[in-house]
Amino acid sequence: MKIAVVVYDKMTALDALGPYAVMAMLPGREISFVAAKAGPVVDDCGALAVTATRTFDDYRDPEIVIVPGGFVTRRMSIVGDPCIEWLREVHPRTQWTTSVCTGALLLGAAGLLKGLRATTHWVAYDELAAFGADPDHERVIVHPERRIITAAGVSAGIDMGLRLAQELAGDRVAQRIQLGMEYDPQPPFDAGSPLKAPPDLVEEMRTTLAESKRRLLADLTPKAAEN
Amino acid sequence: MKIAVVVYDKMTALDALGPYAVMAMLPGREISFVAAKAGPVVDDCGALAVTATRTFDDYRDPEIVIVPGGFVTRRMSIVGDPCIEWLREVHPRTQWTTSVCTGALLLGAAGLLKGLRATTHWVAYDELAAFGADPDHERVIVHPERRIITAAGVSAGIDMGLRLAQELAGDRVAQRIQLGMEYDPQPPFDAGSPLKAPPDLVEEMRTTLAESKRRLLADLTPKAAEN
Repeated sequence: MKIAVVVYDKMTALDALGPYAVMAMLPGREISFVAAKAGPVVDDCGALAVTATRTFDDYRDPEIVIVPGGFVTRRMSIVGDPCIEWLREVHPRTQWTTSVCTGALLLGAAGLLKGLRATTHWVAYDELAAFGADPDHERVIVHPERRIITAAGVSAGIDMGLRLAQELAGDRVAQRIQLGMEYDPQPPFDAGSPLKAPPDLVEEMRTTLAESKRRLLADLTPKAAEN
Repeated sequence: MKIAVVVYDKMTALDALGPYAVMAMLPGREISFVAAKAGPVVDDCGALAVTATRTFDDYRDPEIVIVPGGFVTRRMSIVGDPCIEWLREVHPRTQWTTSVCTGALLLGAAGLLKGLRATTHWVAYDELAAFGADPDHERVIVHPERRIITAAGVSAGIDMGLRLAQELAGDRVAQRIQLGMEYDPQPPFDAGSPLKAPPDLVEEMRTTLAESKRRLLADLTPKAAEN
Protein backbone atom coordinates (compact mmCIF):
# COMPACT_ATOMS: atom_id res chain seq x y z
CA MET A 1 0.00 0.00 0.00
CA LYS A 2 1.82 3.09 -1.29
CA ILE A 3 0.97 6.06 0.91
CA ALA A 4 1.98 9.64 0.11
CA VAL A 5 1.88 12.23 2.86
CA VAL A 6 2.06 15.67 1.26
CA VAL A 7 4.23 18.20 3.12
CA TYR A 8 5.00 21.86 2.47
CA ASP A 9 6.43 24.86 4.27
CA LYS A 10 4.10 26.35 6.91
CA MET A 11 1.87 23.28 7.08
CA THR A 12 0.37 22.41 10.47
CA ALA A 13 2.50 19.43 11.42
CA LEU A 14 -0.09 17.37 13.31
CA ASP A 15 -2.45 17.46 10.30
CA ALA A 16 0.07 15.29 8.49
CA LEU A 17 1.58 13.40 11.40
CA GLY A 18 -1.65 12.33 13.13
CA PRO A 19 -2.82 10.19 10.20
CA TYR A 20 0.80 9.23 9.53
CA ALA A 21 1.00 7.76 13.06
CA VAL A 22 -1.99 5.57 12.25
CA MET A 23 -0.77 4.54 8.80
CA ALA A 24 2.68 3.75 10.26
CA MET A 25 1.05 0.83 12.09
CA LEU A 26 -0.75 -0.53 9.02
CA PRO A 27 0.66 -3.86 7.80
CA GLY A 28 2.32 -3.63 4.38
CA ARG A 29 2.45 0.14 4.21
CA GLU A 30 5.11 2.03 2.28
CA ILE A 31 4.96 5.66 3.36
CA SER A 32 6.67 8.60 1.67
CA PHE A 33 6.67 12.29 2.50
CA VAL A 34 6.24 14.10 -0.79
CA ALA A 35 6.79 17.77 -1.66
CA ALA A 36 7.67 20.00 -4.60
CA LYS A 37 11.33 19.26 -3.90
CA ALA A 38 13.09 16.77 -1.65
CA GLY A 39 14.60 17.92 1.63
CA PRO A 40 13.32 19.56 4.80
CA VAL A 41 10.10 21.55 5.00
CA VAL A 42 9.41 23.68 8.07
CA ASP A 43 6.02 23.78 9.77
CA ASP A 44 3.86 26.78 10.70
CA CYS A 45 5.37 27.00 14.18
CA GLY A 46 8.83 27.32 12.63
CA ALA A 47 10.39 24.75 14.96
CA LEU A 48 9.79 21.43 13.22
CA ALA A 49 11.60 20.35 10.05
CA VAL A 50 10.33 17.18 8.38
CA THR A 51 12.20 15.67 5.44
CA ALA A 52 10.41 15.19 2.13
CA THR A 53 11.85 12.05 0.55
CA ARG A 54 10.01 12.15 -2.78
CA THR A 55 8.86 14.87 -5.15
CA PHE A 56 5.60 15.50 -6.97
CA ASP A 57 7.52 14.97 -10.24
CA ASP A 58 8.89 11.55 -9.35
CA TYR A 59 5.88 10.13 -7.50
CA ARG A 60 2.92 9.65 -9.80
CA ASP A 61 1.27 6.51 -8.49
CA PRO A 62 0.47 6.72 -4.77
CA GLU A 63 -2.52 4.63 -3.74
CA ILE A 64 -3.32 6.75 -0.69
CA VAL A 65 -2.79 10.52 -0.49
CA ILE A 66 -2.95 12.50 2.74
CA VAL A 67 -3.02 16.31 2.49
CA PRO A 68 -2.46 18.42 5.62
CA GLY A 69 -3.66 21.96 6.14
CA GLY A 70 -2.21 25.11 7.54
CA PHE A 71 -3.10 28.77 7.50
CA VAL A 72 -1.08 29.20 4.30
CA THR A 73 -3.51 26.99 2.31
CA ARG A 74 -5.78 30.03 1.92
CA ARG A 75 -3.04 31.59 -0.14
CA MET A 76 -1.90 28.40 -1.91
CA SER A 77 -5.43 27.60 -2.99
CA ILE A 78 -5.83 31.05 -4.54
CA VAL A 79 -2.44 31.72 -6.12
CA GLY A 80 -1.77 28.09 -7.04
CA ASP A 81 0.76 25.53 -5.83
CA PRO A 82 2.48 22.50 -7.42
CA CYS A 83 0.62 20.29 -4.96
CA ILE A 84 -2.74 21.27 -6.46
CA GLU A 85 -1.80 20.25 -9.99
CA TRP A 86 -0.32 17.02 -8.63
CA LEU A 87 -3.53 16.20 -6.75
CA ARG A 88 -5.52 16.70 -9.93
CA GLU A 89 -3.22 14.33 -11.81
CA VAL A 90 -2.84 11.52 -9.28
CA HIS A 91 -6.35 11.41 -7.85
CA PRO A 92 -7.92 9.44 -10.73
CA ARG A 93 -5.59 6.53 -9.88
CA THR A 94 -5.60 6.71 -6.06
CA GLN A 95 -7.59 4.39 -3.86
CA TRP A 96 -8.28 7.22 -1.41
CA THR A 97 -7.42 10.92 -1.55
CA THR A 98 -7.77 12.48 1.88
CA SER A 99 -7.39 15.80 3.64
CA VAL A 100 -7.09 17.06 7.18
CA CYS A 101 -8.10 20.55 8.29
CA THR A 102 -7.61 23.19 5.57
CA GLY A 103 -5.88 20.60 3.41
CA ALA A 104 -9.44 20.38 2.06
CA LEU A 105 -8.91 23.78 0.40
CA LEU A 106 -6.12 22.22 -1.68
CA LEU A 107 -8.41 19.34 -2.70
CA GLY A 108 -11.03 21.98 -3.44
CA ALA A 109 -8.63 24.03 -5.59
CA ALA A 110 -7.82 20.83 -7.50
CA GLY A 111 -11.52 20.51 -8.30
CA LEU A 112 -11.97 17.31 -6.31
CA LEU A 113 -14.72 18.45 -3.98
CA LYS A 114 -17.27 19.86 -6.43
CA GLY A 115 -20.78 19.04 -5.28
CA LEU A 116 -19.43 17.03 -2.37
CA ARG A 117 -20.33 17.25 1.30
CA ALA A 118 -16.97 17.86 2.95
CA THR A 119 -15.35 19.18 6.10
CA THR A 120 -12.36 21.29 7.11
CA HIS A 121 -11.27 23.38 10.10
CA TRP A 122 -14.35 25.05 11.56
CA VAL A 123 -13.12 28.54 10.68
CA ALA A 124 -12.82 27.69 6.97
CA TYR A 125 -16.29 26.47 5.93
CA ASP A 126 -16.92 29.54 3.74
CA GLU A 127 -13.61 29.14 1.99
CA LEU A 128 -14.38 25.49 1.33
CA ALA A 129 -17.78 26.39 -0.09
CA ALA A 130 -16.04 28.72 -2.57
CA PHE A 131 -14.67 25.58 -4.26
CA GLY A 132 -18.12 24.13 -4.82
CA ALA A 133 -18.10 21.85 -1.77
CA ASP A 134 -20.97 21.61 0.67
CA PRO A 135 -19.30 22.16 4.09
CA ASP A 136 -20.68 20.15 6.96
CA HIS A 137 -19.81 20.13 10.63
CA GLU A 138 -18.75 16.52 10.91
CA ARG A 139 -15.43 15.15 12.10
CA VAL A 140 -14.73 12.78 9.21
CA ILE A 141 -16.69 12.56 5.95
CA VAL A 142 -16.14 9.50 3.75
CA HIS A 143 -17.23 9.32 0.10
CA PRO A 144 -16.51 5.82 -1.21
CA GLU A 145 -17.93 6.61 -4.65
CA ARG A 146 -15.53 9.53 -5.12
CA ARG A 147 -12.73 7.92 -3.04
CA ILE A 148 -12.39 11.05 -0.93
CA ILE A 149 -12.22 11.54 2.82
CA THR A 150 -12.08 14.95 4.46
CA ALA A 151 -11.47 15.56 8.16
CA ALA A 152 -12.06 18.53 10.47
CA GLY A 153 -9.29 20.60 12.07
CA VAL A 154 -5.79 19.37 13.01
CA SER A 155 -6.38 16.56 15.54
CA ALA A 156 -9.24 15.12 13.43
CA GLY A 157 -6.56 13.54 11.27
CA ILE A 158 -6.15 10.80 13.86
CA ASP A 159 -9.83 9.88 13.67
CA MET A 160 -9.60 10.10 9.89
CA GLY A 161 -6.57 7.81 9.89
CA LEU A 162 -8.45 5.18 11.87
CA ARG A 163 -11.44 5.39 9.50
CA LEU A 164 -9.03 5.01 6.60
CA ALA A 165 -7.36 2.01 8.27
CA GLN A 166 -10.82 0.50 8.70
CA GLU A 167 -11.58 0.99 5.00
CA LEU A 168 -8.22 -0.44 3.95
CA ALA A 169 -7.82 -3.34 6.35
CA GLY A 170 -11.04 -3.88 8.29
CA ASP A 171 -12.29 -3.32 11.83
CA ARG A 172 -9.89 -5.67 13.58
CA VAL A 173 -6.75 -4.04 12.18
CA ALA A 174 -8.09 -0.55 12.90
CA GLN A 175 -8.88 -1.57 16.49
CA ARG A 176 -5.42 -3.07 16.88
CA ILE A 177 -3.88 0.22 15.76
CA GLN A 178 -6.11 2.19 18.13
CA LEU A 179 -5.08 -0.03 21.03
CA GLY A 180 -1.42 0.14 20.00
CA MET A 181 -1.49 3.93 20.04
CA GLU A 182 -3.62 3.88 23.19
CA TYR A 183 -6.12 6.24 21.60
CA ASP A 184 -8.58 6.55 24.46
CA PRO A 185 -8.81 10.35 24.43
CA GLN A 186 -9.46 12.25 27.66
CA PRO A 187 -8.99 15.95 26.98
CA PRO A 188 -9.04 18.09 30.16
CA PHE A 189 -11.79 20.32 28.72
CA ASP A 190 -14.75 19.88 26.39
CA ALA A 191 -13.71 22.84 24.27
CA GLY A 192 -12.60 21.18 21.04
CA SER A 193 -15.52 22.19 18.86
CA PRO A 194 -17.17 25.59 18.21
CA LEU A 195 -20.43 23.93 19.32
CA LYS A 196 -18.96 23.14 22.73
CA ALA A 197 -16.35 25.80 23.55
CA PRO A 198 -17.27 29.03 25.38
CA PRO A 199 -18.99 31.24 22.75
CA ASP A 200 -16.79 34.27 23.47
CA LEU A 201 -13.71 32.12 22.86
CA VAL A 202 -15.13 31.00 19.53
CA GLU A 203 -15.78 34.61 18.51
CA GLU A 204 -12.35 35.71 19.70
CA MET A 205 -10.73 33.05 17.53
CA ARG A 206 -12.86 33.89 14.51
CA THR A 207 -11.83 37.55 14.78
CA THR A 208 -8.14 36.78 15.21
CA LEU A 209 -8.10 34.40 12.27
CA ALA A 210 -10.04 36.73 10.00
CA GLU A 211 -7.46 39.44 10.68
CA SER A 212 -4.60 37.00 10.03
CA LYS A 213 -6.24 36.00 6.77
CA ARG A 214 -6.60 39.64 5.72
CA ARG A 215 -2.86 40.12 6.28
CA LEU A 216 -1.98 36.88 4.48
CA LEU A 217 -3.92 37.90 1.39
CA ALA A 218 -3.22 41.65 1.52
CA ASP A 219 -0.87 41.71 -1.46
CA LEU A 220 -3.08 39.72 -3.81
CA THR A 221 -5.11 41.56 -6.41
CA PRO A 222 -8.67 42.28 -5.26
CA LYS A 223 -10.00 39.95 -7.98
CA ALA A 224 -7.94 36.95 -6.88
CA ALA A 225 -8.67 37.53 -3.22
CA GLU A 226 -12.39 37.32 -3.88
CA ASN A 227 -12.14 33.64 -4.71
CA MET B 1 9.15 29.53 27.82
CA LYS B 2 12.02 27.36 26.60
CA ILE B 3 10.70 23.96 25.57
CA ALA B 4 12.91 21.02 24.64
CA VAL B 5 11.38 18.10 22.75
CA VAL B 6 13.79 15.16 22.96
CA VAL B 7 14.14 13.13 19.76
CA TYR B 8 16.13 10.01 18.93
CA ASP B 9 16.29 7.32 16.27
CA LYS B 10 13.40 4.82 16.42
CA MET B 11 11.23 7.02 18.61
CA THR B 12 7.48 6.87 18.05
CA ALA B 13 6.90 10.16 16.27
CA LEU B 14 3.45 11.03 17.61
CA ASP B 15 4.70 10.71 21.21
CA ALA B 16 6.82 13.79 20.54
CA LEU B 17 4.67 15.57 17.97
CA GLY B 18 1.33 15.35 19.77
CA PRO B 19 2.46 17.48 22.72
CA TYR B 20 4.55 19.56 20.32
CA ALA B 21 1.38 20.44 18.39
CA VAL B 22 -0.14 21.75 21.62
CA MET B 23 2.99 23.63 22.75
CA ALA B 24 3.32 25.17 19.25
CA MET B 25 0.15 27.15 20.00
CA LEU B 26 1.32 28.38 23.41
CA PRO B 27 2.04 32.14 23.49
CA GLY B 28 5.72 32.95 24.05
CA ARG B 29 7.04 29.45 23.44
CA GLU B 30 10.50 28.77 22.09
CA ILE B 31 10.62 25.12 21.02
CA SER B 32 13.72 23.12 20.13
CA PHE B 33 14.14 19.52 19.08
CA VAL B 34 17.12 18.20 21.00
CA ALA B 35 19.18 15.04 20.46
CA ALA B 36 22.67 13.66 21.07
CA LYS B 37 23.73 15.33 17.83
CA ALA B 38 22.08 17.85 15.52
CA GLY B 39 20.52 16.69 12.26
CA PRO B 40 17.80 14.27 11.23
CA VAL B 41 16.59 11.42 13.41
CA VAL B 42 14.38 8.72 11.90
CA ASP B 43 11.32 7.35 13.67
CA ASP B 44 10.35 3.75 14.40
CA CYS B 45 8.36 3.44 11.17
CA GLY B 46 11.47 4.40 9.20
CA ALA B 47 9.63 6.91 7.02
CA LEU B 48 9.76 10.14 9.02
CA ALA B 49 12.91 12.19 9.53
CA VAL B 50 12.69 15.06 12.00
CA THR B 51 15.58 17.51 12.39
CA ALA B 52 17.20 17.95 15.80
CA THR B 53 18.27 21.57 16.03
CA ARG B 54 20.06 21.46 19.39
CA THR B 55 22.20 18.94 21.23
CA PHE B 56 22.20 17.67 24.80
CA ASP B 57 25.66 19.25 25.19
CA ASP B 58 24.63 22.74 24.13
CA TYR B 59 21.19 22.90 25.74
CA ARG B 60 21.41 22.83 29.51
CA ASP B 61 18.59 25.10 30.60
CA PRO B 62 15.23 24.09 29.10
CA GLU B 63 12.25 25.01 31.25
CA ILE B 64 10.01 22.29 29.83
CA VAL B 65 11.22 18.87 28.71
CA ILE B 66 9.12 16.43 26.68
CA VAL B 67 10.41 12.87 26.28
CA PRO B 68 8.78 10.56 23.72
CA GLY B 69 8.78 6.79 23.84
CA GLY B 70 9.32 4.01 21.37
CA PHE B 71 9.97 0.33 21.53
CA VAL B 72 13.72 1.02 21.64
CA THR B 73 13.43 2.69 25.07
CA ARG B 74 13.49 -0.78 26.66
CA ARG B 75 17.01 -1.13 25.37
CA MET B 76 18.08 2.49 25.95
CA SER B 77 16.92 2.38 29.56
CA ILE B 78 18.98 -0.75 30.22
CA VAL B 79 22.18 -0.15 28.26
CA GLY B 80 22.21 3.62 28.82
CA ASP B 81 21.78 6.60 26.48
CA PRO B 82 23.04 10.22 26.48
CA CYS B 83 19.45 11.37 26.93
CA ILE B 84 19.24 9.68 30.34
CA GLU B 85 22.28 11.47 31.74
CA TRP B 86 20.99 14.74 30.29
CA LEU B 87 17.59 14.27 31.95
CA ARG B 88 19.28 13.71 35.29
CA GLU B 89 21.28 16.93 34.87
CA VAL B 90 18.60 19.30 33.57
CA HIS B 91 15.62 18.11 35.61
CA PRO B 92 16.58 19.98 38.84
CA ARG B 93 16.22 23.27 36.93
CA THR B 94 13.17 22.51 34.74
CA GLN B 95 9.70 23.76 35.46
CA TRP B 96 8.20 20.49 34.18
CA THR B 97 9.85 17.29 32.98
CA THR B 98 7.36 15.16 31.07
CA SER B 99 7.11 11.86 29.24
CA VAL B 100 4.75 10.22 26.80
CA CYS B 101 4.37 6.45 26.43
CA THR B 102 7.59 4.55 27.16
CA GLY B 103 9.46 7.84 27.39
CA ALA B 104 8.68 7.21 31.07
CA LEU B 105 11.29 4.42 31.04
CA LEU B 106 13.94 7.04 30.20
CA LEU B 107 12.76 9.23 33.10
CA GLY B 108 12.80 6.08 35.21
CA ALA B 109 16.35 5.20 34.17
CA ALA B 110 17.37 8.76 35.10
CA GLY B 111 16.03 8.09 38.61
CA LEU B 112 13.27 10.68 38.34
CA LEU B 113 10.32 8.41 39.09
CA LYS B 114 11.42 6.72 42.31
CA GLY B 115 8.45 6.27 44.63
CA LEU B 116 6.20 8.11 42.20
CA ARG B 117 2.83 7.05 40.81
CA ALA B 118 3.40 7.22 37.06
CA THR B 119 2.05 5.96 33.75
CA THR B 120 3.37 4.69 30.43
CA HIS B 121 2.13 2.58 27.52
CA TRP B 122 -0.13 -0.15 28.94
CA VAL B 123 2.24 -2.94 27.89
CA ALA B 124 5.14 -1.44 29.88
CA TYR B 125 3.85 -1.18 33.46
CA ASP B 126 6.20 -3.90 34.73
CA GLU B 127 9.19 -2.27 33.09
CA LEU B 128 8.26 1.05 34.68
CA ALA B 129 7.95 -0.58 38.10
CA ALA B 130 11.52 -1.87 37.72
CA PHE B 131 12.68 1.76 38.07
CA GLY B 132 10.94 2.20 41.40
CA ALA B 133 7.81 3.86 40.02
CA ASP B 134 4.30 2.86 40.98
CA PRO B 135 2.55 2.30 37.62
CA ASP B 136 -1.07 3.33 37.43
CA HIS B 137 -3.61 3.03 34.66
CA GLU B 138 -4.34 6.70 34.21
CA ARG B 139 -4.03 8.78 31.05
CA VAL B 140 -2.03 11.67 32.51
CA ILE B 141 -0.46 11.83 35.97
CA VAL B 142 0.69 15.21 37.26
CA HIS B 143 3.04 15.64 40.23
CA PRO B 144 3.44 19.36 40.96
CA GLU B 145 5.73 18.71 43.92
CA ARG B 146 8.19 16.75 41.79
CA ARG B 147 7.47 18.78 38.59
CA ILE B 148 6.85 15.59 36.64
CA ILE B 149 4.06 14.60 34.29
CA THR B 150 3.79 11.16 32.71
CA ALA B 151 1.29 10.19 30.02
CA ALA B 152 0.00 6.86 28.73
CA GLY B 153 0.72 5.47 25.24
CA VAL B 154 1.39 7.51 22.08
CA SER B 155 -1.78 9.59 21.57
CA ALA B 156 -1.97 10.43 25.30
CA GLY B 157 0.68 13.05 24.61
CA ILE B 158 -2.02 15.35 23.25
CA ASP B 159 -4.01 15.15 26.48
CA MET B 160 -0.76 15.61 28.40
CA GLY B 161 0.11 18.66 26.30
CA LEU B 162 -3.23 20.27 27.13
CA ARG B 163 -2.76 19.58 30.85
CA LEU B 164 0.69 21.10 30.61
CA ALA B 165 -0.69 24.16 28.79
CA GLN B 166 -3.25 24.49 31.58
CA GLU B 167 -0.49 24.39 34.22
CA LEU B 168 1.64 26.90 32.31
CA ALA B 169 -0.95 29.36 31.09
CA GLY B 170 -4.33 28.62 32.68
CA ASP B 171 -7.65 27.18 31.59
CA ARG B 172 -8.52 29.81 29.03
CA VAL B 173 -5.32 29.42 27.02
CA ALA B 174 -5.57 25.61 27.13
CA GLN B 175 -9.17 25.79 25.90
CA ARG B 176 -8.16 28.16 23.11
CA ILE B 177 -5.50 25.68 21.99
CA GLN B 178 -7.98 22.80 22.16
CA LEU B 179 -10.45 24.74 20.01
CA GLY B 180 -7.70 25.81 17.61
CA MET B 181 -6.65 22.23 17.05
CA GLU B 182 -10.31 21.13 17.00
CA TYR B 183 -9.60 18.43 19.55
CA ASP B 184 -13.05 16.95 19.87
CA PRO B 185 -12.05 13.32 19.48
CA GLN B 186 -14.42 10.83 17.87
CA PRO B 187 -12.55 7.58 17.30
CA PRO B 188 -14.50 5.06 15.20
CA PHE B 189 -14.08 2.37 17.90
CA ASP B 190 -13.85 2.29 21.66
CA ALA B 191 -10.74 0.14 21.57
CA GLY B 192 -8.05 2.53 22.76
CA SER B 193 -7.48 1.06 26.20
CA PRO B 194 -6.79 -2.51 27.35
CA LEU B 195 -9.82 -2.10 29.63
CA LYS B 196 -12.08 -1.45 26.62
CA ALA B 197 -10.62 -3.31 23.64
CA PRO B 198 -11.63 -6.91 22.83
CA PRO B 199 -9.73 -9.09 25.37
CA ASP B 200 -8.30 -11.40 22.71
CA LEU B 201 -6.87 -8.40 20.89
CA VAL B 202 -5.23 -7.22 24.11
CA GLU B 203 -3.67 -10.66 24.64
CA GLU B 204 -2.55 -10.88 21.01
CA MET B 205 -0.76 -7.54 21.33
CA ARG B 206 0.84 -8.49 24.65
CA THR B 207 2.21 -11.67 23.09
CA THR B 208 3.53 -9.92 19.97
CA LEU B 209 5.22 -7.19 21.97
CA ALA B 210 6.75 -9.61 24.47
CA GLU B 211 8.32 -11.50 21.55
CA SER B 212 9.59 -8.26 19.99
CA LYS B 213 11.08 -7.28 23.33
CA ARG B 214 12.83 -10.65 23.64
CA ARG B 215 14.42 -10.09 20.21
CA LEU B 216 15.38 -6.50 21.03
CA LEU B 217 17.18 -7.56 24.20
CA ALA B 218 18.54 -10.91 22.96
CA ASP B 219 22.17 -9.83 22.76
CA LEU B 220 22.30 -8.27 26.23
CA THR B 221 23.79 -10.29 29.05
CA PRO B 222 21.16 -12.26 30.97
CA LYS B 223 21.81 -10.13 34.05
CA ALA B 224 21.18 -6.80 32.30
CA ALA B 225 18.12 -8.10 30.48
CA GLU B 226 16.50 -8.99 33.80
CA ASN B 227 16.15 -5.32 34.73
